[in-house]
Amino acid sequence: MDSVSLDKVYQAAYILKDVARKTDMIYAPKLSNEAEIYLKTENLQVTGSFKVRGAYYKISQLTEEERNAGIIACSAGNHAQGVALAASKMGIKATICMPDGAPISKVEATRALGAEICLVPHTYDDAHDRAVQMQHETGATFIHPYDDQEVIEGQATIGLELFEQLPDLDAVLVPIGGGGLIAGVAYVIKRLKPSVKVYGVQAEKAPSMAESFKRKQIVSVDRVATFADGIAVKTPGDLTFDLICKYVDDVVTVSEGEIAAAILALMERQKLVAEGAGAVGVAAAMFNKVPIKGKKAVCIVSGGNIDVNIMTRVITRGLVTDGRMCTLQFSLDDKPGQLAGISRIISECGANVTSVLHERSDESMAIASCYLKISMETRDFEQIKQIRQALTEAGYNIIN
Amino acid sequence: MDSVSLDKVYQAAYILKDVARKTDMIYAPKLSNEAEIYLKTENLQVTGSFKVRGAYYKISQLTEEERNAGIIACSAGNHAQGVALAASKMGIKATICMPDGAPISKVEATRALGAEICLVPHTYDDAHDRAVQMQHETGATFIHPYDDQEVIEGQATIGLELFEQLPDLDAVLVPIGGGGLIAGVAYVIKRLKPSVKVYGVQAEKAPSMAESFKRKQIVSVDRVATFADGIAVKTPGDLTFDLICKYVDDVVTVSEGEIAAAILALMERQKLVAEGAGAVGVAAAMFNKVPIKGKKAVCIVSGGNIDVNIMTRVITRGLVTDGRMCTLQFSLDDKPGQLAGISRIISECGANVTSVLHERSDESMAIASCYLKISMETRDFEQIKQIRQALTEAGYNIIN
Repeated sequence: MDSVSLDKVYQAAYILKDVARKTDMIYAPKLSNEAEIYLKTENLQVTGSFKVRGAYYKISQLTEEERNAGIIACSAGNHAQGVALAASKMGIKATICMPDGAPISKVEATRALGAEICLVPHTYDDAHDRAVQMQHETGATFIHPYDDQEVIEGQATIGLELFEQLPDLDAVLVPIGGGGLIAGVAYVIKRLKPSVKVYGVQAEKAPSMAESFKRKQIVSVDRVATFADGIAVKTPGDLTFDLICKYVDDVVTVSEGEIAAAILALMERQKLVAEGAGAVGVAAAMFNKVPIKGKKAVCIVSGGNIDVNIMTRVITRGLVTDGRMCTLQFSLDDKPGQLAGISRIISECGANVTSVLHERSDESMAIASCYLKISMETRDFEQIKQIRQALTEAGYNIIN
Repeated sequence: MDSVSLDKVYQAAYILKDVARKTDMIYAPKLSNEAEIYLKTENLQVTGSFKVRGAYYKISQLTEEERNAGIIACSAGNHAQGVALAASKMGIKATICMPDGAPISKVEATRALGAEICLVPHTYDDAHDRAVQMQHETGATFIHPYDDQEVIEGQATIGLELFEQLPDLDAVLVPIGGGGLIAGVAYVIKRLKPSVKVYGVQAEKAPSMAESFKRKQIVSVDRVATFADGIAVKTPGDLTFDLICKYVDDVVTVSEGEIAAAILALMERQKLVAEGAGAVGVAAAMFNKVPIKGKKAVCIVSGGNIDVNIMTRVITRGLVTDGRMCTLQFSLDDKPGQLAGISRIISECGANVTSVLHERSDESMAIASCYLKISMETRDFEQIKQIRQALTEAGYNIIN
């Protein structure tokens, strides 16, 4: 007996009709040569992520008494905004505990949606403890970000939309943090059309569900050090773990560089801004982590709330992962013409220098040597190899 | 008597059904406090811009003899990809002349769509001359990027979609380069519902249509120095100028900083990547260039093909325009504690230092002085003012 039901997912879809957008499904032929990739663009959802679906449906099912007592949630990110919007649409008082290190932009966005913000010193876990304590004190309802039947049923409405928008899909790739999204989507898919494959994707630096899935028991990871902060969850949920074991075909992981490359590909080729958590499905498709060759596969781009400063760093990282940017470091004899010689070779190889750092002041270096660091735009790894070879043959000492 | 007809626009919509996406219309409440802004997301169109509409419809109307002779176009950007895709879908040979300085990514994207690329040394004008010459030699049909009846009718299909997706719209803001997009959209709008306002938007550094509209005669501008390269057009088209004079309510301009701020807002708040040309309508709405207070206004985000390296610079520029990033330069006595003192004041004011350049080697400075340049993340212009004031009061010499 499952903890969720199809009837309630249909009810959720009905209730969400005027609240959540039926986000567009976009064909993305440039993301893979092997599979037919489609994107379910929940980054274009209101509040910039799918979270509003689960939060709104959950809150809609509270009794009048519960509504009057208000709600509490704990989140540094997308769940906060989803809950805040849902509560304000229903005229319910929402208090959101956030760790005080949360980005100002996320705090302000949540406040702008009408929620009361309680900034708690230190970590997410501290904010969570504070939220639970407040819940005991006030009798408000705590809205869990993923391990809740109705939250899962709300997220599951995406599953219904997948069938509506692409009836002949073969597979779906879904980001996993706590597992609420994939638990709901997998449940709907396997109930309605079990032949469709469901793959979960995690960051390899936050692999709690991937590990749990493999061992068939819930395991926690100590450290979650991915820039895909939306899926950096230390311990899977109980409800979500059960549903995932039952309905998901496999859970795979992707590296930080692969996530960055996916974010970059989404920006450049699809004109979409995705956050790290939102891009892991695309990363898995691009880097062949799941068997979807020749298949119609939907990647759920679950959210787009990425800090712009991180975004510029991600773009750089993605360019490096793609071989389109390269930085070389040299240790050189300090004599005239070194920079000119190196620049000439790079230019002859067709690369475009973007920055130069040239100095001789480092106390770790020999008196008569100097240090040169050159960054350049390149075409691909082949070109980088040619450049390195040409420079080495000309006698320049590349140290990195 | 107009050069275009509604019947042909309907025909174009029918022909484009399986080629162009009916791009999503997205409500964007965070882009303006004054108006209800909606985005027509042609940046999510196939090839990343609306251009495929006009190109495909134009080519679909060629005779069999003309099709067999092939087509020629000249473009460094979106028109090239639109024509290439349209030709390949219809199995027609396409030759695209591009200036040899065009970004490699755009050349490759066009080639990948099956077109033959002819790289012409020097400027766009040279590429254009070469295309005209080739057209005379080969008898192929030249596909003009905007000043063509059927190209305009193809772009006009967006007008029909606006009414379908937002029947009660009050106004539409449309980017203008050569004028093909707005000529078509304005024609449809004023024929079907003349009460809807149509505003054209240009970059103030490439204001040829704005000037022409004001003077009621076609004028050229010598220099088009905007980073919104998709609308950097020196001379308006004849057909487009006539239609714009007749059907457009006003043509306004936006600055480079305003365009950058609009691109940044689209990324952060709407998760959409827009190129400069695609963002000018949003810039006009954000910076109150048109009278849309309290109205439902659609901004056509016409394209998303922006180079990622430019994008990172635009993000920075947009942050500066918003008061969220600030760089201060100091001339200081070269004595211990200066950097510590300045850093402390900045930190006390709540800003976050992101880069520091500190040196004393500049031959233009007095021997006993040094130069310091500090960049920081800030909240708003008010905070920047406080920081400047605190530093000045503490005796530090801010030179910029």
